Amino acid sequence: MKKKIGLKDIAGFKISAVKAGIKASGSPDLGLIVADDMAVGSAVFTQNKVCAAPVKLSKANLKKNKGYIKAVVVNAGNANACTGTLGIKNAKACATLVAQKFSTKMESILLCSTGIIGEHLPMKKITDGITKSCLLINNNKTDAIFSKAIMTTDTVNKELGTTVNIGRKKIMIAGAAKGVGMIAPNMATMLGFLLSDIAIAPKVLNTILKEVVDDTFNCVTVDGDTSTNDTCIALTSGSAGNKIITSTKSEEAQKFKSALREVSYELAKKIARDGEGATTLIRVLVKNAGSRKGAYLIGKSIAESPLVKTAIAGNDPNWGRMMMAAGKSGVNFNESKVSISISGIKLFAKGAPLKFSHSKAVKALKKKEVTIDIDLGKKNSGIEILTCDLTHGYIEINADYHT
Amino acid sequence: MKKKIGLKDIAGFKISAVKAGIKASGSPDLGLIVADDMAVGSAVFTQNKVCAAPVKLSKANLKKNKGYIKAVVVNAGNANACTGTLGIKNAKACATLVAQKFSTKMESILLCSTGIIGEHLPMKKITDGITKSCLLINNNKTDAIFSKAIMTTDTVNKELGTTVNIGRKKIMIAGAAKGVGMIAPNMATMLGFLLSDIAIAPKVLNTILKEVVDDTFNCVTVDGDTSTNDTCIALTSGSAGNKIITSTKSEEAQKFKSALREVSYELAKKIARDGEGATTLIRVLVKNAGSRKGAYLIGKSIAESPLVKTAIAGNDPNWGRMMMAAGKSGVNFNESKVSISISGIKLFAKGAPLKFSHSKAVKALKKKEVTIDIDLGKKNSGIEILTCDLTHGYIEINADYHT
Repeated sequence: MKKKIGLKDIAGFKISAVKAGIKASGSPDLGLIVADDMAVGSAVFTQNKVCAAPVKLSKANLKKNKGYIKAVVVNAGNANACTGTLGIKNAKACATLVAQKFSTKMESILLCSTGIIGEHLPMKKITDGITKSCLLINNNKTDAIFSKAIMTTDTVNKELGTTVNIGRKKIMIAGAAKGVGMIAPNMATMLGFLLSDIAIAPKVLNTILKEVVDDTFNCVTVDGDTSTNDTCIALTSGSAGNKIITSTKSEEAQKFKSALREVSYELAKKIARDGEGATTLIRVLVKNAGSRKGAYLIGKSIAESPLVKTAIAGNDPNWGRMMMAAGKSGVNFNESKVSISISGIKLFAKGAPLKFSHSKAVKALKKKEVTIDIDLGKKNSGIEILTCDLTHGYIEINADYHT
Repeated sequence: MKKKIGLKDIAGFKISAVKAGIKASGSPDLGLIVADDMAVGSAVFTQNKVCAAPVKLSKANLKKNKGYIKAVVVNAGNANACTGTLGIKNAKACATLVAQKFSTKMESILLCSTGIIGEHLPMKKITDGITKSCLLINNNKTDAIFSKAIMTTDTVNKELGTTVNIGRKKIMIAGAAKGVGMIAPNMATMLGFLLSDIAIAPKVLNTILKEVVDDTFNCVTVDGDTSTNDTCIALTSGSAGNKIITSTKSEEAQKFKSALREVSYELAKKIARDGEGATTLIRVLVKNAGSRKGAYLIGKSIAESPLVKTAIAGNDPNWGRMMMAAGKSGVNFNESKVSISISGIKLFAKGAPLKFSHSKAVKALKKKEVTIDIDLGKKNSGIEILTCDLTHGYIEINADYHT
């Protein structure tokens, strides 16, 4: 993974971001991605039954325009969710404004919003910000602060990229994402933006994006709360000049998928590591669960258990809470075949507690990354779920948000 | 509800409790309920796939002895869960010892343990404690500290009772319960002990207990974590001398059920109010959800959302998080028909935010009891889910448990 590759390095796109004044802090809060021509786009959205106006509009536009996208505009600080018909009207006004600036139709624009639910967009600030962003792009002034402009309670911006050789062409992929609360593995669970210069058919990109998101972003959980605004968008410009990929099963598609997965997985880890109040990245590795669904439910139950998350925060090798969480998942397994290790230290094997060095375990738990290995003793199927510990920081951020 | 009625007032039972030395604090930690004759008993247990040795043994004994129970022994400080075959052996030894003391068979004894998972019972301390408890009862020394002996992280003991006239007899019902972490609405979710002097057939008691628990204790959630040891036991002595109740549909059965529900609901509220770190009791009232299951899933999703619980802790009338939580429940509803009030203050009506006095809302949220009303705008079916706010106290208790 090359940290130096960012969104701005992907040929065929221009990026900008501005301070529109939506965030009270005065930080950058409006970002824009514009394709030089028309990009091939795909997106996955929140599965929350209550979804925000920008999600509704983006879904509709993506369908209407058959996956061809000119621009994506993102604002942070206001989610435009639960805002009724005025919310939809405001979202459309934003998309229409961007479309006008680039002489395209409203249906080729995607929209993302993140921030507080239930307040109307400050339209004057937003439209001024959009106008400013479009001007920057028309003047060819690409800005690197896009990944900062999409942050809410994130403490660091999250952006990285990689390259992969397909045929004789070097393909570039970069992504940016934001977390870090209201994050749970039920669809895209955050905002994510993946750009590539690859030439690929819309249907193939669609299939690949869904599979990659399922395996990466959908395996992140910070608090089990699924946002109303989660969106992950992939745009490809075709500027790399490779022979267009038209089959998901082709070697080229699989190579691209693997590289896109790498970018998404690393961004997913960054989201979990930066979870609200987090001090530790927790990787829950479920093994031999019998089925992917079983592995997912057990991993999610452990990763979302407040008691497991506070135990890790307290450097407590409390495998009992992990067994409790596995058991409450509803998945059938034989207790006497289960083994658990934390960061490589075996604590519980085949249904019985093991003697282990408490001080060594505490030392391992004090590290910034902890793994929980749980082997259910069946055959097949494992999964990796990414989460973080639950600390006073989470309470501070979320009990005192508005003030 | 009469707070002065406790377990010790129910004719036909003797109660004792001792300090066995299982809790490091030296507080009472072993309790015993013994029926003068043989009581009619029923119980509901945790649905966690990983269940503790005492749960396994009690389930088996209740079945083998067809609902006739001589005694219940409870220890706090050690859960005897995930302890393999030695755990089962230890549980049987405890039950056998109690049986010997009262000249009955092991199968007529029920066992409950609560405390840390994954450690073996300190058998010397426990058997000494059991011997001491049995002696107290044989000497007719009923002790009122039973509800204290079952506490773990509870800050107050929870015990209350009521009376109901059935025919010409005054029936007495009393209950004691403990929480207050690893609590979620998936079966009994705590330890609960309900005693009555009513004469009732085992099958009728069984049906009534299940319905009552479903509606009260199973509607409590502190952290969404379902314990490996949850048990609710009802014992009836028949000492009231009423004509034995043999039909669930009889007026007498319904009267008893209603009184038992009242006792259970008040205990359930005490558990939620005393949730680990809690400062506020939250009553989530779901209305017009179309079905009981839908109402339950929406109520549970709101009551278990860390973002909702921290918002209440921070006195923030953040109805947006409640909408998010309702939406992530997976239940279908029409966003534009939803209304939300907090403690009677209308915040959101038919899909749109309302103007409201922020200072009034903050004032209402500062009270020790907060209601969240959510009306889904369908027909039929509501539910009340009981929970508490999520505060620094929860983190303190659970990140630093062992030390």
